Amino acid sequence: MFSAEHSAETVAASFAQTGDPRLRTVLTSLIEHLHAFVKDVALTPEEWEAAIGFLTEAGQACTSTRQEFVLLSDVLGVSMLVDALSNPADGELTESTVEGPFHVVASPPRALGDSIDEAGDGEPCLVTGRVADENGMPVAGASVDVWQANADGFYDVQKPDELPERNLRGLFTTDDGGGFRFRTIVPRYYPIPDDGPVGRLLRATSRHPYRPAHIHVEVSAPGLRTLTTHLFVAGTPYLGSDAVFGVKSSLVREFATVDDPDRAAGAGLPSPFRRVDFPITVRRGVAG
Amino acid sequence: MFSAEHSAETVAASFAQTGDPRLRTVLTSLIEHLHAFVKDVALTPEEWEAAIGFLTEAGQACTSTRQEFVLLSDVLGVSMLVDALSNPADGELTESTVEGPFHVVASPPRALGDSIDEAGDGEPCLVTGRVADENGMPVAGASVDVWQANADGFYDVQKPDELPERNLRGLFTTDDGGGFRFRTIVPRYYPIPDDGPVGRLLRATSRHPYRPAHIHVEVSAPGLRTLTTHLFVAGTPYLGSDAVFGVKSSLVREFATVDDPDRAAGAGLPSPFRRVDFPITVRRGVAG
Repeated sequence: MFSAEHSAETVAASFAQTGDPRLRTVLTSLIEHLHAFVKDVALTPEEWEAAIGFLTEAGQACTSTRQEFVLLSDVLGVSMLVDALSNPADGELTESTVEGPFHVVASPPRALGDSIDEAGDGEPCLVTGRVADENGMPVAGASVDVWQANADGFYDVQKPDELPERNLRGLFTTDDGGGFRFRTIVPRYYPIPDDGPVGRLLRATSRHPYRPAHIHVEVSAPGLRTLTTHLFVAGTPYLGSDAVFGVKSSLVREFATVDDPDRAAGAGLPSPFRRVDFPITVRRGVAG
Repeated sequence: MFSAEHSAETVAASFAQTGDPRLRTVLTSLIEHLHAFVKDVALTPEEWEAAIGFLTEAGQACTSTRQEFVLLSDVLGVSMLVDALSNPADGELTESTVEGPFHVVASPPRALGDSIDEAGDGEPCLVTGRVADENGMPVAGASVDVWQANADGFYDVQKPDELPERNLRGLFTTDDGGGFRFRTIVPRYYPIPDDGPVGRLLRATSRHPYRPAHIHVEVSAPGLRTLTTHLFVAGTPYLGSDAVFGVKSSLVREFATVDDPDRAAGAGLPSPFRRVDFPITVRRGVAG
């Protein structure tokens, strides 16, 4: 019979016949921690009802371009924790961070050096880098998928009526030396979508919804572990209080101002422009 | 900066400015237990994605008469745990149990002795009882709200096209001696709704979806703590493995068979009929 004292054991026992041993392990641990939480705070029936209502609203806020549970996982630090566990820090490798909820459309393939800016506003910027493995060997033919917010802090999918389709997205392939380069504009910091239940949670807890300015970068190739990371703009607001805990100091780079008409002409950009180099080191291993 | 080692402290610190101290306490504990769970099982990105998908589907399965998150809470034993914490066992009081997801329409007021069976099939049954406080004083004028499944295991709201509206629901008022009585039919055991994500979870873990046969009873009155409980039918299948952990042995009663045409006539029932008495003891205190 059920009792508060032995509730977790009773419920865990009901999962004893689970065929998949990993599923049984995960559920048993979930039950232990969930019941311990409810007991530690002596959750009241009214609070339980509020939680049911919150989860229901979160589910009903989800659409093909809005994922409220990913947002919830992000603001509770769970997304970053899962990422950290699956990509343990290693001084040699480029650090990973969250994918975020805006990688919902495929980036268009582009040639090295192309611009991903289809709208033509914002501070012009040249991004370069090289993909290498942990032994420093360049990785030719790697896919470098980039996506970012614009100078007003919006992704294309958030303003489909105002912004060109696939604005500020590009899929590049590294050259024989592992190199990649593209033209873009400097992204702005932005709020995560905060007009739903997760936004209400942030307001109720006096947390702001902002993420510091960054460019998303995902690197993949046969024989490489896929790396999902960000290139953060040094000096952007919110580097110390990212709403989703995604900042790692090794990923913050100066976007230096270059005031040199010759170099600007060489890069195919107006002068002055901003300039950042982002060398990337990825581990050999199973892709995924 | 974020690290797996200190993830819970980092995220909890982001809630430090929460104005409502209770909300801060609950969220801090939630973060600690949630992060401990993710670390204990080393949750993988693929498992995290499956969890996001499961929660999303659960939210999208909710309608005005279907509450998938309540079902999830029920099958994980959380509903019973919250109930147990807010209604600690006390030898003198009638034990409480879960409300369940079918109290979604108001029960029609009925006179003492009326039948709640609008469909006319199933084994006829007479239910009697008395509401008293912890000192044994009868509670006159208390509301006794009852609802139950039919002889096929269905609530009216599950078969709106086949079953009479408000079938097997009734709101009674106790007489001067605290007494109540009504005619009904013996309910059957039934499966919780298992055509959604919670049903998939049960199948993946080799758990059955059944609840043992019971009549829901909710007693309320000014100056009484509201009691939500069940009257279980002794001998029903699944008493030992209720899918929602709702059984307490003190709530299981014999529904005795009475084969006596005179008593049947007195009760307004055909002979033979089933007979159960359910005295209820409720605590004085704030209603709710």
